[in-house]
Amino acid sequence: MSTIIERLGVDIGGTNLRVGVVRGLEVVHELRFPADFSSICKQHAPATAWQEILRITLSALQQVVAEYPRVAGVGIGFPGFISPESGRVVQSPNLPGLRDVDLAGELSDLLGLPVKVENDALVAAFGEYMLLAEKPRSMVYLGLGTGVGGGLIHGGQPYPGDHGMAMEVGHIIVTPHGRKCGCGNLGCLEQYAAATGVIASYAEATGEQLLAHEIAARAKAGDSHAQAAYDLAGSTLGIAIAHLAKTLDPALVLIGGGMSQAWPLMQKALKDQLHQDLIPVLRDKTQIVVSGSGDQAGIIGAAYLTA
Amino acid sequence: MSTIIERLGVDIGGTNLRVGVVRGLEVVHELRFPADFSSICKQHAPATAWQEILRITLSALQQVVAEYPRVAGVGIGFPGFISPESGRVVQSPNLPGLRDVDLAGELSDLLGLPVKVENDALVAAFGEYMLLAEKPRSMVYLGLGTGVGGGLIHGGQPYPGDHGMAMEVGHIIVTPHGRKCGCGNLGCLEQYAAATGVIASYAEATGEQLLAHEIAARAKAGDSHAQAAYDLAGSTLGIAIAHLAKTLDPALVLIGGGMSQAWPLMQKALKDQLHQDLIPVLRDKTQIVVSGSGDQAGIIGAAYLTA
Repeated sequence: MSTIIERLGVDIGGTNLRVGVVRGLEVVHELRFPADFSSICKQHAPATAWQEILRITLSALQQVVAEYPRVAGVGIGFPGFISPESGRVVQSPNLPGLRDVDLAGELSDLLGLPVKVENDALVAAFGEYMLLAEKPRSMVYLGLGTGVGGGLIHGGQPYPGDHGMAMEVGHIIVTPHGRKCGCGNLGCLEQYAAATGVIASYAEATGEQLLAHEIAARAKAGDSHAQAAYDLAGSTLGIAIAHLAKTLDPALVLIGGGMSQAWPLMQKALKDQLHQDLIPVLRDKTQIVVSGSGDQAGIIGAAYLTA
Repeated sequence: MSTIIERLGVDIGGTNLRVGVVRGLEVVHELRFPADFSSICKQHAPATAWQEILRITLSALQQVVAEYPRVAGVGIGFPGFISPESGRVVQSPNLPGLRDVDLAGELSDLLGLPVKVENDALVAAFGEYMLLAEKPRSMVYLGLGTGVGGGLIHGGQPYPGDHGMAMEVGHIIVTPHGRKCGCGNLGCLEQYAAATGVIASYAEATGEQLLAHEIAARAKAGDSHAQAAYDLAGSTLGIAIAHLAKTLDPALVLIGGGMSQAWPLMQKALKDQLHQDLIPVLRDKTQIVVSGSGDQAGIIGAAYLTA
């Protein structure tokens, strides 16, 4: 008789913490816990914020483990850089003050279970990969949301880079001397291809400040400025994917994240630009596909970190 | 008593074929054979050219194996795309007509030895990696010659990409709408950072068509146009390395190839541009180093393909 293995996959977001109980490739139960870690980091000194974050995460996990006592391991997708050597959280752009903390190690000691932490975009990439029926040698995931995150899977394993900073694709410079980015540079991809970028493009053309999905609705209704904003998102993604194809030659680029719902508005500009930028031998080699996994990939990828 | 293992490393160049007998990390004997494969491909129909290339390579290897009968395997660095699945030569930009040929398989049958073929720049990268005293998780090699080649080593292994086309770094577009490249695109790295690029930069400024090393000598003597040509080579390399760092986060970028002798003329512009283009967390993470291995890396990397 075979035993069904259960693992927990955790997604730490801006304001809440999602815990999924994963069996095989299915999330059989998902629980959400309020966890406004951003505010905690703003309101408290680093040491206090860290203890608070640890306490809230532990308490959520203990509740779930009490209900699912056979859980074999816990994986966590975390918005920050994770050292591939130590597994520690090196730092987190969204959770300032949190530096060099051992989230995995401390939780593992307190829970008595194997715990692994990895960057959230890389974990989403890993989940997307696990959900593929046919697994390529390598796959790039691009998550389009308020920023652009990314993850590379190679040989069946997440590829974190030497310092946990691989696939910072949102900051590939696609327009020299272009829009100012939060990172301090000019012309980064996410200033054009993330939701904030589309909003900026539309506001530049019309003076109107709308949400990305409202601009998408207008584009579908025939608003040419709205379509132009999504064309620019697509063509800048094409520039970045051409760089990725020339360096990594992946079989597959998977596009996910909330903004990927606007894929029909972006895909022509993306594919035209990509075709133009590639050297002939690389054309039509990399498949570009939109993810259909909703928000489950992050949970599943996290769960499989301890597999 | 331990036996000393000997392997052959082969470098197939434009006009000759170098075979090195490798023991440990040393090339104990190097032999050169005339092998003008470019001319052969121009003068003969593909099927005839391929038979001729196979015959010349086999004959060279047989001579060396006769002298070194204990050879355990043969690795070949080949100027072309190699299928990571079949090991066949898919195609070669410099040897047109040669398509989907099984160089490794045919030589292995004829020699009765294990033979492996891999892209020449990737093999050079692997050789550089083997020669490192401290091995990083990942390393990028950039070979600056008449073009710009590249190779990625990850987890101790060459990373060929899904179609044998990874690290086509010479064709990363560094200047939108820039100089026309042989690939058909505009603004590719090698139009600025390879020898041909430096020559073009100097000719654009002065009307004089010199060799890259003559321009280097003028730069050292204080010619500002010559220095500007190398500055542009450095800054465009900086742009490309920033893309690589943001996607791969390697511990080390190793610069080799003939043009790397002009490193002192390029390094300031390269490092300034790289620093500017990187997001703060990535700054000073990747070490940029010039190779000191001369032309031995290709031979050693090839030899270790069968290790």
